[in-house]
Amino acid sequence: MSNVYKKVELVGSSREGVDDAIRRAVAKAGETLRNLDWFEVKEIRGWIDEGAVQHYQVTITVGFRLED
Amino acid sequence: MSNVYKKVELVGSSREGVDDAIRRAVAKAGETLRNLDWFEVKEIRGWIDEGAVQHYQVTITVGFRLED
Amino acid sequence: MSNVYKKVELVGSSREGVDDAIRRAVAKAGETLRNLDWFEVKEIRGWIDEGAVQHYQVTITVGFRLED
Amino acid sequence: MSNVYKKVELVGSSREGVDDAIRRAVAKAGETLRNLDWFEVKEIRGWIDEGAVQHYQVTITVGFRLED
Amino acid sequence: MSNVYKKVELVGSSREGVDDAIRRAVAKAGETLRNLDWFEVKEIRGWIDEGAVQHYQVTITVGFRLED
Amino acid sequence: MSNVYKKVELVGSSREGVDDAIRRAVAKAGETLRNLDWFEVKEIRGWIDEGAVQHYQVTITVGFRLED
Amino acid sequence: MSNVYKKVELVGSSREGVDDAIRRAVAKAGETLRNLDWFEVKEIRGWIDEGAVQHYQVTITVGFRLED
Amino acid sequence: MSNVYKKVELVGSSREGVDDAIRRAVAKAGETLRNLDWFEVKEIRGWIDEGAVQHYQVTITVGFRLED
Amino acid sequence: MSNVYKKVELVGSSREGVDDAIRRAVAKAGETLRNLDWFEVKEIRGWIDEGAVQHYQVTITVGFRLED
Amino acid sequence: MSNVYKKVELVGSSREGVDDAIRRAVAKAGETLRNLDWFEVKEIRGWIDEGAVQHYQVTITVGFRLED
Amino acid sequence: MSNVYKKVELVGSSREGVDDAIRRAVAKAGETLRNLDWFEVKEIRGWIDEGAVQHYQVTITVGFRLED
Amino acid sequence: MSNVYKKVELVGSSREGVDDAIRRAVAKAGETLRNLDWFEVKEIRGWIDEGAVQHYQVTITVGFRLED
Repeated sequence: MSNVYKKVELVGSSREGVDDAIRRAVAKAGETLRNLDWFEVKEIRGWIDEGAVQHYQVTITVGFRLED
Repeated sequence: MSNVYKKVELVGSSREGVDDAIRRAVAKAGETLRNLDWFEVKEIRGWIDEGAVQHYQVTITVGFRLED
Repeated sequence: MSNVYKKVELVGSSREGVDDAIRRAVAKAGETLRNLDWFEVKEIRGWIDEGAVQHYQVTITVGFRLED
Repeated sequence: MSNVYKKVELVGSSREGVDDAIRRAVAKAGETLRNLDWFEVKEIRGWIDEGAVQHYQVTITVGFRLED
Repeated sequence: MSNVYKKVELVGSSREGVDDAIRRAVAKAGETLRNLDWFEVKEIRGWIDEGAVQHYQVTITVGFRLED
Repeated sequence: MSNVYKKVELVGSSREGVDDAIRRAVAKAGETLRNLDWFEVKEIRGWIDEGAVQHYQVTITVGFRLED
Repeated sequence: MSNVYKKVELVGSSREGVDDAIRRAVAKAGETLRNLDWFEVKEIRGWIDEGAVQHYQVTITVGFRLED
Repeated sequence: MSNVYKKVELVGSSREGVDDAIRRAVAKAGETLRNLDWFEVKEIRGWIDEGAVQHYQVTITVGFRLED
Repeated sequence: MSNVYKKVELVGSSREGVDDAIRRAVAKAGETLRNLDWFEVKEIRGWIDEGAVQHYQVTITVGFRLED
Repeated sequence: MSNVYKKVELVGSSREGVDDAIRRAVAKAGETLRNLDWFEVKEIRGWIDEGAVQHYQVTITVGFRLED
Repeated sequence: MSNVYKKVELVGSSREGVDDAIRRAVAKAGETLRNLDWFEVKEIRGWIDEGAVQHYQVTITVGFRLED
Repeated sequence: MSNVYKKVELVGSSREGVDDAIRRAVAKAGETLRNLDWFEVKEIRGWIDEGAVQHYQVTITVGFRLED
C-alpha cells in the first residue's frame, strides 16, 4: 500500500515517430528493471539529415516499484 | 467577434499512441459540449505492464466558444 | 569544431498527427535553409471542427549550423 | 472560514486591449456563476489582420467560492 | 480500458495544514462528482493574521473518470 | 490546409502601456513580413527614470504563414 | 561599469488596469529607494466583486543600482 | 483600496514537517514586519542525517501591505 | 571539499500525509545508499477512493555524496 | 537548528564572465549583510557593444541566516 | 525612444567554457546583424568524449534594434 | 541507430567556477559509466563563507548510451 517507487530517465529514439521511441525506451528499461509501472514524457526532439527527420528522440522518466 | 471561450481539461487514453489518445478525449468532449474550437497538449504519460507500454495518456485542454 | 548554430521557430500542421506535423515543418525549413541539424518540440496543439480533431499543430525549433 | 473554491479557465477577447479582455471574461463568468472572488492571468495572445492587432486574447482562471 | 478523465481545479483551505486542506477540497468534490481517481497539488499558499498563519490554502486538480 | 508557420520574436516599447507596445511591435513586423496571423506575449518589463515608468517593453512572438 | 543591482518584489493594485497598477508600484518604490532602473512583471491577477473586476493586481520586481 | 504590497522571501525549517516550517518563517517575519497578509510556498526541501529526515526546509514569500 | 553528489528520484506514499510520505521515501533510500545529504520535493499528488484521499504521493530527489 | 533564513535578489556584472559576476554580487551583499550562507543563479544575460560582449550580468538570490 | 527590437536564438560552442561560448555566438551574430544590444542565456549543455567535456554549448537569444 | 540512452543527475563543485564544477562532475561519472555522450546544466548555486564564494555547485544530467 505504502510503496516506494524510483524513477529513472531514459531517451528512446526511432525513425518512425514519437510513440515508437517511447516503446523502445520502455522495452530497454524492462530488460534490467522489474515492476515498471508508468512513464512520463519530458522532452521530444530529434535529428535531421539532408533536410528530413532522421530520428525522433523522446526523453521519458520511467517509474517502478521498489521491492521490500 | 469579442467572443468568450472556456477551457476544460481532459485526459484521453489509447493503446495505439499519442494522436489517438487526443482524438478520443476530443470525441468525448464533443458528446456534451458544442462549439469546440481547439486543444492544447499539457502532459503525455502512460501505463506500463509486463515491461511494455499499455496505454498512452494525454492531458489536453479543450477550448470552446460560450454562446451568447 | 566550435561551430555556431541558429535556431528558428516553426509551426507544422497535419491532419494525420504529431509525427507528420513535425516532418512537414522540417521539410519546409529545408527548402530555404542548409545544414539543418536537429529539432526540439515546444508545443503541441490543434484545431477541432464538428467535434473532431481537424489539424494537429506542432511548434518546433530547428537548429542549423551557420557557415563560416 | 474553511471554504472550498473552484477555478474555471476562460478566454476573453477585446479589440481594445488586455484590461478589457479580462473584464469581458469576468462579466461572462458572472452570468452563470455566483461568488466570483478573484482571477489570475495565464496567457496573453491575440490575432493579427492586415498587419495590425485585431483582438487581444487573455486566458484567465476565475476562482469562486462553493456554497455549503 | 481507454477511459477519458476530466480534471477540475479546486482550492481547499484549513487552519491545520496542507494535508487537511487537500482532504477538504477532495471531500467537497466528492459531494457532486463520482469516480474521483487522483489529485495533483498545483500551489500552496495561505493567509496571515496578526503575524501568524490563519489558513493554509492548497490548489489541487482532481481527476475523475467520465462515464460512458 | 496543412500550412507551415514561422514565429519571430520582437520587443515593442511604448510610453503609454502594454497594449500600445504590442501594437508597435506588430506594426513594425508588418513592414517586412506578410501573412501575419497571431502574437503571443512572452515577457513584460520596462524602464524607470526618476522614480517613474518611462517605457513599457513587451516581448512577443509573431506567427506568420509561409507561402508555398 | 561593473555595478551591482538589487531587486525587490512589489504588488501594485489599480481599479483602472494593468499599466496603472505597475505605475503605482513603481511610484511607491520611488518613495524610499533611489536609482530605480527597471521592472519585470511576474504575475497579473485581481479581485472580483459582484461579478465585475474590482482591482487589477500586478506583481513586479524592481531593480535598482546599489551605490558604492 | 489601491494598496501597494511588498514580498520578502524567507526559508523556515522544522524537525516536524512542512506546516511547522511555514509557521516558523511567518512568525520570524512577524517580529520585524507589520501588516503581514499572505504567504506563497516556493520550494520544499530538507536535510538528511544518518538516513533519516532531519529538517524540512520551506521557502516562502510573505506579502505585507506598505503603509502610506 | 570539491565533492561530487548524485541525485536519485523517488516517490514515497503515505496514508497520513506529505511529511510522512517524504520520510518513507528517504528511509527506503537509506536502505541501499550511504551519505544521503538532502532532498528536494518535485511533485505532490495522491490517489482518491470512495471520495476521500487514500494515499499522498510525494516525488523527491535525494542527493548523496559519492565516495572517492 | 530550526533557523530562519532570508533571501535577497542581486544582479552582479563583470567584463570577465559569469563566475566573476557572481563573486561581485556576493561581495557587495557581504558589505551590509551577515551570515551569508548560499546563492542560487536565477538568470544570466549581458550587454553587447560594437558586436562584442561588454558585460555579463548574473541575477542571484543570496540566502543568509536571520539572527535570534 | 519607442524602438522595436528583434531577438534571434543562437548556439555558441567552445572547448574553454561557458563565457567563451557566449562570446563566440555574439561575435558570429555581429558578422551579419547591426545594433546588437543584449543577450539572454537560455540553456547550457555540452558534449562529452572519452569521459571528459569536449565542448560547452550555450544557447542564447540576442536582441538588436530594428532600424526605422 | 535507434539507441537508448540513460540520464543520471550529478552535482559537481569547484572553488574555481562553473566550468570546472561541470568538468569534475563529468570526470566522476566517467569513473563508473561508459559511453558518456552529453550533459545538460540544470541548476547553478554555491556556498558562501565569510562573505565570499567558497564553492560553485552545478547540477547536471549526464546522458550515456546503453549497450545492447
